[in-house]
Amino acid sequence: MALSEFSLIERYFSRLTGHRDDVTLGIGDDCALLQCPPGKEIAVSMDTLVEGVHFFADVSPEALGFKSLAVNLSDLASMGAEPAWFTLALTLPDSDDNWLQGFASGLARAAAEHNIQLVGGDTTRGPRTISIQVHGLVEQGHALRRDAAKVGDKIYVTGSLGDAGAALKQRLENWTPPELNAQDRQYLQERLEYPAPRNHLINIIGQYVNAAIDISDGLLADLGHILERSGKGAEIQTALLPLSPSLKKLPAELARELALTAGDDYELCFTVPAGLAPALEQDCKLVTCIGEITDTNSLILKDQSGKDITLNAKQGYDHFSA
Amino acid sequence: MALSEFSLIERYFSRLTGHRDDVTLGIGDDCALLQCPPGKEIAVSMDTLVEGVHFFADVSPEALGFKSLAVNLSDLASMGAEPAWFTLALTLPDSDDNWLQGFASGLARAAAEHNIQLVGGDTTRGPRTISIQVHGLVEQGHALRRDAAKVGDKIYVTGSLGDAGAALKQRLENWTPPELNAQDRQYLQERLEYPAPRNHLINIIGQYVNAAIDISDGLLADLGHILERSGKGAEIQTALLPLSPSLKKLPAELARELALTAGDDYELCFTVPAGLAPALEQDCKLVTCIGEITDTNSLILKDQSGKDITLNAKQGYDHFSA
Repeated sequence: MALSEFSLIERYFSRLTGHRDDVTLGIGDDCALLQCPPGKEIAVSMDTLVEGVHFFADVSPEALGFKSLAVNLSDLASMGAEPAWFTLALTLPDSDDNWLQGFASGLARAAAEHNIQLVGGDTTRGPRTISIQVHGLVEQGHALRRDAAKVGDKIYVTGSLGDAGAALKQRLENWTPPELNAQDRQYLQERLEYPAPRNHLINIIGQYVNAAIDISDGLLADLGHILERSGKGAEIQTALLPLSPSLKKLPAELARELALTAGDDYELCFTVPAGLAPALEQDCKLVTCIGEITDTNSLILKDQSGKDITLNAKQGYDHFSA
Repeated sequence: MALSEFSLIERYFSRLTGHRDDVTLGIGDDCALLQCPPGKEIAVSMDTLVEGVHFFADVSPEALGFKSLAVNLSDLASMGAEPAWFTLALTLPDSDDNWLQGFASGLARAAAEHNIQLVGGDTTRGPRTISIQVHGLVEQGHALRRDAAKVGDKIYVTGSLGDAGAALKQRLENWTPPELNAQDRQYLQERLEYPAPRNHLINIIGQYVNAAIDISDGLLADLGHILERSGKGAEIQTALLPLSPSLKKLPAELARELALTAGDDYELCFTVPAGLAPALEQDCKLVTCIGEITDTNSLILKDQSGKDITLNAKQGYDHFSA
């Protein structure tokens, strides 16, 4: 790291993100030095956000800072790993003080909420790009994986689906549905800009889970990863998809499509042995059962009228249209 | 990671980089899962390369792949950490098959040479940017740090200095010094494009070192980091600076300036207690003593005629001109 880069990172970021006992050496040397407790494994994930691809140029820097870390925290949640450390590679066209302060404050808010410490980074000049790598800790052999779904497992999701997708559709298509009032639009916008990764649910639901993933690309695409890696199929009751009060105001078919295919919600999708489902639902009110793992390699969607829509697991759920 | 991104990474990269026993889960889930052996700490560093800032648009993709990892490996070397795992965030304007194959092959070559495994990544569309994060392992409490130089320590560098800088100067200034023949120019170009990080010297020199850094921004800038973090000064005998046969052909003053200020050599600069210097020099022929740590906060340069140039440690060695 060049002196100027290091100073930039240090000035805006290093004091904002707490001090964990397992960080021997933080920002300021060639490497950070980190301690992994005995019996734990390290879960690592990285996500890059590019201006014009993953975010609009006019997004609030505070929201962008928050979301950049939140989407990575969501990957740790989906593995059942407790957040520990992160690094930041920030490419910026200029060093705009207001922008950096806003970005750092959003980042710091997400970091403080999840007790994760910034331990290093790199700042370079160029088109605005944010690349964050997170490290989490998980008991050896206890990580939640995509490849462990069993036939008969109940399929659950957290929270509600499709909200971020509705906000994105409003922005991209200049779409102003008459059913939504200002409060609804505000709610959907918050869901898009300040996703709440589900890390705090892991201690409750982790004990019941066979396979898990976070919903970043849409339920069908992400559940598709579980099915593909586990070599299984699924049947989903679309009438059970959890929808927010705002999304319920929209035409039912549109709301269903958003809940099935829109990304950016950062809810969890996971499978649970049928016998454990009642205990899970007793322990956690934020989850909804939406279907079941099957021994086919197809994903079958049932609508309210009982009509089946069958897709081939290999053809990619991301091209799904209802 | 979206399916398409994951497939892109997997197709070009995942089979090329070995399989370490301490990787429980590699590419293909929300996170990789990694095991840190008892008694070790994890050293983490990240570097971003942006087209037009850190590399030319017409650089060979094979060289770029090699160098992207090599510069990060150099950070591990400077901490005395053994390379273990890395992640890759790749932003590309298009998915050019030839480019990706070349880049992956250069990356794989550097990875194989240092037994480091790719464990995850993210591919996005945008201006060409490469961000690599490396993880290394080091005995707890044995990392080589910048802040541990002691008064009286001898200052050493590995290899030779200024070669990459001379190559860069040729390219940037369209400079064709008559002293250099085609073979010299080829040699200097190789030093710029395929830096050889000094990881394999760590087992030999690590036992002697008090403080260490790698020379990415130029000797004065990087030695400056050691001095600043250690609260010390230094005296450098510029006549002792190790120069390659090609650089020795240039006018002495120019060669000296390149060796002192040019970056991109990825040699190590480190300090050793004076009493251990003879044993170090016995064990390793690739190191040169260039000066000594002092109890001032100044860096004094002595030239062959005995003339002193004094710089204030706080003013930044990167603005140095001889």
